[in-house]
Amino acid sequence: MTETVVSSATKTVKIGFDRPFCVIGERINPTGRKKLAAEMAAGDFATVEADTLAQVAAGANMLDVNAGIPLADEPAILAKTIQLVQSLTDLPLSIDSSIVAALEAGLAVYQGRPLVNSVTGEDDRLEAVLPLIKKYDCAVVAISNDETGISEDPDVRFAVAKRIVERAADHGIKPCDIVVDPLVMPIGALGQAGNSAFRLIRRLREELRVNTTCGASNVSFGLPARHGLNAAFLCMAACAGMTSAIMNPLHAEEMTAVLGADVMLGKDKDCRRWLTKFREPTPEAAERGERRRRRA
Amino acid sequence: MTETVVSSATKTVKIGFDRPFCVIGERINPTGRKKLAAEMAAGDFATVEADTLAQVAAGANMLDVNAGIPLADEPAILAKTIQLVQSLTDLPLSIDSSIVAALEAGLAVYQGRPLVNSVTGEDDRLEAVLPLIKKYDCAVVAISNDETGISEDPDVRFAVAKRIVERAADHGIKPCDIVVDPLVMPIGALGQAGNSAFRLIRRLREELRVNTTCGASNVSFGLPARHGLNAAFLCMAACAGMTSAIMNPLHAEEMTAVLGADVMLGKDKDCRRWLTKFREPTPEAAERGERRRRRA
Repeated sequence: MTETVVSSATKTVKIGFDRPFCVIGERINPTGRKKLAAEMAAGDFATVEADTLAQVAAGANMLDVNAGIPLADEPAILAKTIQLVQSLTDLPLSIDSSIVAALEAGLAVYQGRPLVNSVTGEDDRLEAVLPLIKKYDCAVVAISNDETGISEDPDVRFAVAKRIVERAADHGIKPCDIVVDPLVMPIGALGQAGNSAFRLIRRLREELRVNTTCGASNVSFGLPARHGLNAAFLCMAACAGMTSAIMNPLHAEEMTAVLGADVMLGKDKDCRRWLTKFREPTPEAAERGERRRRRA
Repeated sequence: MTETVVSSATKTVKIGFDRPFCVIGERINPTGRKKLAAEMAAGDFATVEADTLAQVAAGANMLDVNAGIPLADEPAILAKTIQLVQSLTDLPLSIDSSIVAALEAGLAVYQGRPLVNSVTGEDDRLEAVLPLIKKYDCAVVAISNDETGISEDPDVRFAVAKRIVERAADHGIKPCDIVVDPLVMPIGALGQAGNSAFRLIRRLREELRVNTTCGASNVSFGLPARHGLNAAFLCMAACAGMTSAIMNPLHAEEMTAVLGADVMLGKDKDCRRWLTKFREPTPEAAERGERRRRRA
């Protein structure tokens, strides 16, 4: 049974076929957030702090940290952001950058075993990122595109993922340390985006036996009532075998979908997490809580 | 590609692998609704009328009609209810009873080609119901239990469904006229109920090539926040291949789940139904609508 082990200095999280769905909070990312980008570039991390605490409180299992700000010193800002976030939470982090020097700067300061986001199937990326994964003994998100771009054919994307897993093995990296992103396209533009993703997720799980993740909200890009579509997608992807997603834990519909999917797949033992979140207290329990609050 | 064709006097609905999910409204059913049972027994059909119109307005594709009232003349009441409902809507109906004489009374008055709900794998039921299905050339819900009860093993339930399909063939009834109910158990009592259902739905589709349905809300029995669980289940069952459900179309979370699942499976061409339901009007369109309302 495949398990990807990530950790902070004090907390271990396992992404796995029989584990509850792993919610990777996406908020600490200045892409498309001009105000946050300006703040981070100016050394103001108040929003990063707030986003960290809010995502932890909302039930994220990991946090993605991205510092991609045009013309800024991304390696330095990413390293600083990671140190700050690790001082605020014990959740393991995903170190997110397309710049190898930034990944390396992040890895150098990270406490624990992070997930590196990401490597693609392009030769130069593989040769730049895989040695880092081996050197720091960590896990990596593998995006199933290569020099030829993103194929619409899920079987071509499967072949790219397979090649990444093989190349990683050449570097001494195990399949359990690779979390494949099937690249979910906007369904409003590509009507088969869902079917392609579900087919690919199934093949990745059954044939390559790797964990999977994706940027879930991409599927609803350009459509109204996005939370409803994201929720449907998350349940269906989980049913097809997806084991994590980079998503916004502050959205109740998506989080309910993920918790509901765990119940349905028998991953929430005795429905404990569902009951903790949704059970109305009995009148007696409510009164006990009230008395406790008054005494405090 | 399997298609189950049902109709009223003027409208045909096809349940099928490549068709949008078929929502069968469950409301016209006195089971557990004491007031409705008393009304129907007394010949008062005001609630039946209201439930018919509300379910049609909410977007149901078919309506289930049940008149199971203890000590009442079920065949007569069921026939009367069907005639009334057919006078109010052109949606095809599912004639729902465990009493063969009631099914026969309903079939005798029904205009079009109904779905009969249901037959089980018990010998006496098969021999009583299948000849009616053949005689009236209609479709039937087959419930995957038999004399031995309801197995927890999805493969045993598959075998029961297979036997029903074979017995139906002996009566000259085609597999496309059989919609199998995999019998979804409450997940709060049976943690593997979801996994069992999804596995069974997949096998029924891929191996028996039959359409499937179920009483969807049963899965969340006894748990809080049932709509969230039902929504997750519906999306996941649709992803596994389920093509219809007997459910409450008045619940927004479940209907959004079904519409979202259709988008994800490429069954809502160009997302038209999703856009019709959820698109915010542009300021110009809103103004045009406002002017039209003022003129009216």
